[in-house]
Amino acid sequence: MRRLALTDEDVAGRKLVLSWFRDAGLEVTLDRIGNVRARRSGLDDSLAPVVIGSHVDSVATAGRFDGCLGVLGGLEVVRTLNDQEVRTLRPIELAIWTEEEGCRFGTDMLGSAVAAGRITEAQARSLTDAGGISVGAELDRHGLVGPVAVPVTPPAHYLECHIEQGPILEAGGYEIGVVTGVQAILWHRLTIRGRAAHAGTTPDALRHSATLAAALVTVKLDEMVKSGRYGALLANVGRFDTAPNLVNIVASEAVITIDLRNPEEDAIQRASADLLAYCREVEQRTGVTIASEITAHTPPVQFYDEVMDEVEATANRFGLSNRRIMSGAGHDAGEMAAICPTGMVFVPGKYDGISHNPREYSTPKACADGINVLFQCAVSFANRS
Amino acid sequence: MRRLALTDEDVAGRKLVLSWFRDAGLEVTLDRIGNVRARRSGLDDSLAPVVIGSHVDSVATAGRFDGCLGVLGGLEVVRTLNDQEVRTLRPIELAIWTEEEGCRFGTDMLGSAVAAGRITEAQARSLTDAGGISVGAELDRHGLVGPVAVPVTPPAHYLECHIEQGPILEAGGYEIGVVTGVQAILWHRLTIRGRAAHAGTTPDALRHSATLAAALVTVKLDEMVKSGRYGALLANVGRFDTAPNLVNIVASEAVITIDLRNPEEDAIQRASADLLAYCREVEQRTGVTIASEITAHTPPVQFYDEVMDEVEATANRFGLSNRRIMSGAGHDAGEMAAICPTGMVFVPGKYDGISHNPREYSTPKACADGINVLFQCAVSFANRS
Repeated sequence: MRRLALTDEDVAGRKLVLSWFRDAGLEVTLDRIGNVRARRSGLDDSLAPVVIGSHVDSVATAGRFDGCLGVLGGLEVVRTLNDQEVRTLRPIELAIWTEEEGCRFGTDMLGSAVAAGRITEAQARSLTDAGGISVGAELDRHGLVGPVAVPVTPPAHYLECHIEQGPILEAGGYEIGVVTGVQAILWHRLTIRGRAAHAGTTPDALRHSATLAAALVTVKLDEMVKSGRYGALLANVGRFDTAPNLVNIVASEAVITIDLRNPEEDAIQRASADLLAYCREVEQRTGVTIASEITAHTPPVQFYDEVMDEVEATANRFGLSNRRIMSGAGHDAGEMAAICPTGMVFVPGKYDGISHNPREYSTPKACADGINVLFQCAVSFANRS
Repeated sequence: MRRLALTDEDVAGRKLVLSWFRDAGLEVTLDRIGNVRARRSGLDDSLAPVVIGSHVDSVATAGRFDGCLGVLGGLEVVRTLNDQEVRTLRPIELAIWTEEEGCRFGTDMLGSAVAAGRITEAQARSLTDAGGISVGAELDRHGLVGPVAVPVTPPAHYLECHIEQGPILEAGGYEIGVVTGVQAILWHRLTIRGRAAHAGTTPDALRHSATLAAALVTVKLDEMVKSGRYGALLANVGRFDTAPNLVNIVASEAVITIDLRNPEEDAIQRASADLLAYCREVEQRTGVTIASEITAHTPPVQFYDEVMDEVEATANRFGLSNRRIMSGAGHDAGEMAAICPTGMVFVPGKYDGISHNPREYSTPKACADGINVLFQCAVSFANRS
């Protein structure tokens, strides 16, 4: 339930999965940023592989399906090909991407972004967690710096099966989601500096509360979401730290993170600009200073018609009800779409699709449906010359 | 700058001060809650003593004057009497009170409240800090449980010299504040429970963000203060903790503390009631639950005309400009006023009286003025049969 990227728990989970990969006869290698590649040979190993991937790192209060379904589903595809003694024209490779969640080092899809070339290896290694420990130091400590160069050689196709993490498929009674792309994601970190003061004797007019300023921004974001002026905007203030964080002292500093999502890049940029403009208002009103930093930004991603059509046709052939759906969450597939034909298969989650929560759940049937579609698509693409 | 009550740093500070007390010939004892009493004999030790006291514990980002001025000022009174070989009719005792700030265990004026009988020894010992360590465990660990029973035998008078911790004296050019009492203080701790969810995929209508709820309460408090509908209300949200406190997860829990101050008990009670009523609105609006707990409440305290008149007359005799002023901060004198004639001497602080901050400062002249007045009042009361 808690395997923050590159912690001992995350690495223990990786090792267990890699032992299963090797049992399945896969040849395991690592790239420079710790991404796993596990290869099943094809009839012609000179051809670019079809890659099936996802992640096994988790948020701090995770569910059991986010990421793991795609990795273990890929393993099931390989095991099934082995059991049936089926050879494919192209190699099939399973990928496990490093720090997909971004919860520890502040940038999500980190490993796949480095593999796809959006972020350099040096930039990624220099990122640090709340304790000041760097990605590079953790990769070195765990011996996860592998020989495969980044950016990686583009695969023939990239496929990923994932739980929806939302309520749409379950509410509509759909068994499969044909993912059309990933909505834009923009993360801000605001560092607010006020002035520590005695909470009993400092007149209100002389207070510069960093906590009040952070609260005003938090409430404003909720108003922006509900205003409808930014389309399907979502916003979350996830981290909210204040100092000195004591009952009778006006806070001198607050650090908050803001997670914005929107299917439209222009709408998320308008929301971001209006938010920062409001920060200037808050500075005027409360006498604090607000420094903002963009810690993550991924524009909307459009997946490939070729892959969407294959997923849709396969689901229909199996008689699985399906609809096209845009992903609300970021995924490694969004990074891979920059370098090769890419698509995703969504399966419904229970309880309004609750995710990043221990209650996250997809039924065995829902998971099997998704992996059956993944299998057929992978084999189909792996047999194309 | 950081001696949170009953930490090793606080106890190290106490030991240093006690060594100075003993060098001044004082007989040092402890009561059951770790309050220090250091006695200078009078001509008639059967008479109740005049007690001069304050505290040496601090907030996490303290100044050097809050509390220490009153304790070291009392020591200077005793040293001066020793130097001049002056005997007083009544004994004079110096008091150091335990956990005045309330920053570690959540209840301020804890030691003096136990000494005065407002809080029982058992209640006080059972209070715990953020790490679950109890007052009782820390008192036992440091060997601070003394023989003096609580509640204590009432002194003849209680006097305390303290920095104002506000801007009023400095702004008006006053050298001495004749303290008329202490405004009411009411602390709430709110525990807000929402639901953890994925920040990218959970529709806004299905979110129950504990952080948003806490922010709404924080902004509402600021509106209440500025509305003027509660007289001279002050409010501070000092602690603001959320869980899991990660960028892309809607917070499932938030704990915030609220510090309300008001010269009028009825006004602070109205503010408290309206705040809790607003919490019910926030529950409806955001789908969270908000549990509230009062962690501290001291009604307004009125000091004694007899002591105020003596402080005022002494300041006038020394040609020190002075005014009557109500204390914005809680003080141990507020507790002692429940069991004996009590008063305080304020000295001005620089920089708008900034306090609970390392910039806190009173000039040597300001401190000397206050302690001179304290000396004269103490000797005057100590010579009354």
